[in-house]
Amino acid sequence: MKISVVKDILEANDRIARENRDLFDDNGLVVFNLMSSPGAGKTSLLERTIDAMKGDVKMGVIEGDIQSTQDAERIAEKGIPVVQINTGGACHLDGNMIRDTFKEFDFAALDLLVVENVGNLVCPAEFQVGEDFKAMILSVTEGEDKPSKYPLMFRESKVLLINKIDLIPYLDISLERFREEALKVNPDLTIFEVSCKTGEGLDAWYAWLKAQVKAGSAA
Amino acid sequence: MKISVVKDILEANDRIARENRDLFDDNGLVVFNLMSSPGAGKTSLLERTIDAMKGDVKMGVIEGDIQSTQDAERIAEKGIPVVQINTGGACHLDGNMIRDTFKEFDFAALDLLVVENVGNLVCPAEFQVGEDFKAMILSVTEGEDKPSKYPLMFRESKVLLINKIDLIPYLDISLERFREEALKVNPDLTIFEVSCKTGEGLDAWYAWLKAQVKAGSAA
Repeated sequence: MKISVVKDILEANDRIARENRDLFDDNGLVVFNLMSSPGAGKTSLLERTIDAMKGDVKMGVIEGDIQSTQDAERIAEKGIPVVQINTGGACHLDGNMIRDTFKEFDFAALDLLVVENVGNLVCPAEFQVGEDFKAMILSVTEGEDKPSKYPLMFRESKVLLINKIDLIPYLDISLERFREEALKVNPDLTIFEVSCKTGEGLDAWYAWLKAQVKAGSAA
Repeated sequence: MKISVVKDILEANDRIARENRDLFDDNGLVVFNLMSSPGAGKTSLLERTIDAMKGDVKMGVIEGDIQSTQDAERIAEKGIPVVQINTGGACHLDGNMIRDTFKEFDFAALDLLVVENVGNLVCPAEFQVGEDFKAMILSVTEGEDKPSKYPLMFRESKVLLINKIDLIPYLDISLERFREEALKVNPDLTIFEVSCKTGEGLDAWYAWLKAQVKAGSAA
């Protein structure tokens, strides 16, 4: 009984997500769904990425949080369109919540829309929102065992950013093992090792993302 | 429709959790539910705590993970009873999963049972498992905005351990603001500032926990 209810919810969500995706495609818009544990650096990555894209790629952001508008305020300071979703308790975004933001955007004027999900390494990976691809961040402070313990998000993601590498000298961890453990769960992952604090490693991410936008707009 | 289903699940869970609690009480067993984001240090805290309690308090542990037995193996090395629950995808433990472990334990021989929940700052706070109290860990690497963005777990917890304080020199954060933000959400929180790596601050936690066990066994 419980399982069939969950299945219905997931199927209904997939239907809405496909409609969202069609609308994004009609507007030549590339969309990615950004996921991570709380505090891994999603908003910091977006702040850096918005600055790096300026002039080349017109970006918009949807911020998902259980409550508060702190993240949307940080993004708004960058001068790009941003809408905050407050889930009011729900632990992930779904297709319906994303659809509710559409009236706030002029999609024809955008190239790239980022959906910053609720900080949670589990549930967001189960719900499509209409994205072209999923991206995730893992902070080195979380430990190398996370891919094997929380495999779904690593499996669903196209790209993994390993963040806070500036802290490695002060941790008992191996960056090599982070890569190995992630690739064991998903051998197709594109991985970037970055620090959103110092900026280290981010140029490769910007270049990769610009190529995704170029390919997506042309498709 | 969706809301009423969720309500039914929560009510059914509360009923089972109360039954678990009665059984724990009958055995003079103190039980806490340990929650945090992935990688905040739940298992490291338990390893330290087991060593510190040895001789005084007889401990058992229930390990909750989506998959893998890595955490249970770490605890088993300490020579205390441990059972691993694999949720197979579910993002939290519930009363029923805890009940399924009972046949593996001799509760009359234990003073303290710790339920280490799935790493997730959202969902575990919604589900009672029969615990006397909830404890949570927040790593300083997660940032001071977490209490206001994920308030439920902070509100539900009796005690908060702020972990990884050894990393503070390398972060742009204020330990004072961590305390303030947590107390804004829950003024009754007992807070310990600790490093499970260096051991700093843990003696106060051990003393507090021993007092809880003493009071609980006497009740």
